Amino acid sequence: MTADHLAGNSLAVQSFSLENLDHVDRSAEAVERRAAFVAHLRRVLPLERLALARDEREAAATDRSGIRLPGSPVAVAFPESIEEVQILLRAATSHRVPVIPRGGGTGLSGAAVASDGSLVISTERLTRILEISPDDEIAVVQPGVLTADLDRAVARHGLMYAPDPASHEISTIGGNIATNAGGLHCTKYGVTRESVLGLTVVLADGTLLHTGRRTIKGVTGFDLTGLFVGSEGTLGIVVQATLRLRPRPVKTTTLTAFFPSSEAAAHGVTAIVRSRVQASVLEFLDSGALRAIDTAQQTDLATRGTALLIAQTDGYGADLEADVLAAALTEVGAAVEVLDELQAGRYLWLRRSGRGPFTDTWFVGEDVAVPRSVLAEMITTIGEIGERHGLEVAVVAHAGDGNLHPMLSVAMSPVDGGSPPARLHQAADELVRAALALGGTISGEHGVGIAKRPWLSAEIGDTSLQLQRRLAEVFDPAGILVPHTWLART
Amino acid sequence: MTADHLAGNSLAVQSFSLENLDHVDRSAEAVERRAAFVAHLRRVLPLERLALARDEREAAATDRSGIRLPGSPVAVAFPESIEEVQILLRAATSHRVPVIPRGGGTGLSGAAVASDGSLVISTERLTRILEISPDDEIAVVQPGVLTADLDRAVARHGLMYAPDPASHEISTIGGNIATNAGGLHCTKYGVTRESVLGLTVVLADGTLLHTGRRTIKGVTGFDLTGLFVGSEGTLGIVVQATLRLRPRPVKTTTLTAFFPSSEAAAHGVTAIVRSRVQASVLEFLDSGALRAIDTAQQTDLATRGTALLIAQTDGYGADLEADVLAAALTEVGAAVEVLDELQAGRYLWLRRSGRGPFTDTWFVGEDVAVPRSVLAEMITTIGEIGERHGLEVAVVAHAGDGNLHPMLSVAMSPVDGGSPPARLHQAADELVRAALALGGTISGEHGVGIAKRPWLSAEIGDTSLQLQRRLAEVFDPAGILVPHTWLART
Repeated sequence: MTADHLAGNSLAVQSFSLENLDHVDRSAEAVERRAAFVAHLRRVLPLERLALARDEREAAATDRSGIRLPGSPVAVAFPESIEEVQILLRAATSHRVPVIPRGGGTGLSGAAVASDGSLVISTERLTRILEISPDDEIAVVQPGVLTADLDRAVARHGLMYAPDPASHEISTIGGNIATNAGGLHCTKYGVTRESVLGLTVVLADGTLLHTGRRTIKGVTGFDLTGLFVGSEGTLGIVVQATLRLRPRPVKTTTLTAFFPSSEAAAHGVTAIVRSRVQASVLEFLDSGALRAIDTAQQTDLATRGTALLIAQTDGYGADLEADVLAAALTEVGAAVEVLDELQAGRYLWLRRSGRGPFTDTWFVGEDVAVPRSVLAEMITTIGEIGERHGLEVAVVAHAGDGNLHPMLSVAMSPVDGGSPPARLHQAADELVRAALALGGTISGEHGVGIAKRPWLSAEIGDTSLQLQRRLAEVFDPAGILVPHTWLART
Repeated sequence: MTADHLAGNSLAVQSFSLENLDHVDRSAEAVERRAAFVAHLRRVLPLERLALARDEREAAATDRSGIRLPGSPVAVAFPESIEEVQILLRAATSHRVPVIPRGGGTGLSGAAVASDGSLVISTERLTRILEISPDDEIAVVQPGVLTADLDRAVARHGLMYAPDPASHEISTIGGNIATNAGGLHCTKYGVTRESVLGLTVVLADGTLLHTGRRTIKGVTGFDLTGLFVGSEGTLGIVVQATLRLRPRPVKTTTLTAFFPSSEAAAHGVTAIVRSRVQASVLEFLDSGALRAIDTAQQTDLATRGTALLIAQTDGYGADLEADVLAAALTEVGAAVEVLDELQAGRYLWLRRSGRGPFTDTWFVGEDVAVPRSVLAEMITTIGEIGERHGLEVAVVAHAGDGNLHPMLSVAMSPVDGGSPPARLHQAADELVRAALALGGTISGEHGVGIAKRPWLSAEIGDTSLQLQRRLAEVFDPAGILVPHTWLART
């Protein structure tokens, strides 16, 4: 995933290089201030909770976005209890040190990138599943639990944890909550927000806050739980989460549908929507994506069609629902095949991971979403943008949600001077604005972080952005939590 | 529904009679100030938008909670456009007049009860369904649309609007959003919050704010949409909503299960949870509820068992799922019957409306929720509370969500002196605290309003309550929006 997004992130960094991100304070006063903070940390925490060596600090300074800011954090802390998170945040508040909460470091938009002189607080040692209640269909977990680990742990009770970002084997529940992570199954089961019932959060000043509840329903006061989900670490550090589990489907049925064009496949998505069958997975791959998989995996997908839909149904009605989908897709010209379980697993793996690493190529990996009815139009537009700028285009999409991950790329060349060509940046900008123009969003599931800051105001407007800044101040009056990302309160 | 909650609300009013709710300002200065405000309204709005007669103002001063505050609002406004809502809120802000947003007036917790000298802004003339997009599975509506009307309008496209509070024929989308309304189908399809994608809101100072989006997914900034859902009018007035629609089930299968005791029926709920079949409806009725229905409707439910579960499954797997449920319920001792469509409709109607009006009786209608695994314990506790205080007990519950609506009642007596006896209040207080002690919530779906203020802090804690007050100030710095309800910023 890293490489997928490198150029996109270079773009973001460039856009902000003239703002507040390139400030590295090397003054004697700054050096002294940081030393005093580190000395304070060493007094209030066991030594083994702190990583102070340069390589450790630099390893924790970026995420899978590849974005890197000048300078480095002063320390990386690995608290092992809620109390230690409180101690760390109290220390950071009293010393006015920026704090970067860090989960698995798998984010793609730079929300966990550390600025110079900041404190990184990692949740990687808070990995306990505290409770699984099969009769309540809930789990209570610490934030460092890996998403796929939780899903495996509840499977023995016939349950599942539904949100399944492609990174689920390496991303954490805390990170998923911070970014409101999506995934393949979200088209039926909702994003992370729909699976979070309650949170325990440490605020910037060390205060412990409980939100939500253990019950499925409840309407007492504002939905602070929902406010924290997707807030990218700007409101506090989640130290415990009560999660909703769902019945694990007794059966899944998977089918592939090859189409003569991307637009035809997009119309296939509309045909599925009109069938009123709720697919549990609905993935789109265009010819660029199919060719990339063929190259990396020696498959022959591109010889079978120009675009592919992978659809899955689940539950007691899975077969009947798959029949309806197959008929609807055949009707609009697809070559449909129902897969056996082994093939189904293979196709989903190819969709998630099949494209392999990219080398000797500059590229932007995008994450936009549009209303499903204009998916065909958006796909056409992406193709036009690629053509206009002389770029290769490959698109995969969580089509059931209208959430597209287009990749724009171009071979590296000696004339680039070690930087991605400007036309790549220009094309990415046009692509994001095209999604907005179609009633879409600049981020379907990766979040804003640093990478999507340039377009945030164009989507939500200045009224909302100003309100959101004031809202963040309620939780973090000193503005120490990731102050350089999208809220940009400076 | 009104009468159901009268005593509960008397309780609430009593609890607050020494606070800020009994203040009626009859000074010459107040009379003059109010006259100036009304004169201002008459200048800025067409006359037919304002109701100024005493009977009209008093009709809009309470909701179905039956709670009534001393004095009356100065005017009831019926804006017919977003601009008129803005004009009204600007006027209220400049004159520092409290504003009570009002939907269908069907709320059960007193969130839409008007204080003396306030302005009621009714959404009842904002009733247009602006758009139904079958291919995006969304609708865009004004807030005054009746919930059941929207559901009927989208049915022709094979879609449904899932949230279905018992009041769906008379409650509005705006009111449902303000209270995050639940209903029978929420156990499978989620509460109102899960069906709201975006909002247009007028803030207290007249500013127009857009939240959310038209896409199913999106993670740009804080989830302000979720923050407004359930905020009970305290953050702004919703003037437009983009709603998520869902495929209308092709089939529903309904069964009844009679049990020898309430506790056995509660264990039946656990048996259903353990079957890992997601019921689309799962309702519980105890012997008191069955007897009340029998009395009102000449049915014989109470002769067939001491407690009843009504379960529904839906979709392509409905029959297979109903088979699993029937087996699970039979296994734990229930007498199970699968119903035909006519019977199914009849049972759901009996559950929703069958108890009829209550006369010559003092009662408290409650709304608490507990984790589903302790449903049996909660039901036992409710019985004990009733017995200890010499009260009749009747319990219905959205059992799939652990959401109970117990009714405690006692025949009126001349010794009451026209007020419900103190032991009714005491029993209600014990019941709410028992739900909290079992890890539950003081309100499953009706909201806090005025009625549940006494217990709010016990559930969410002072840290959260203080934060929520500061958060409300971000949206409404002057504190004019329903300032006397649960936020109680005065």
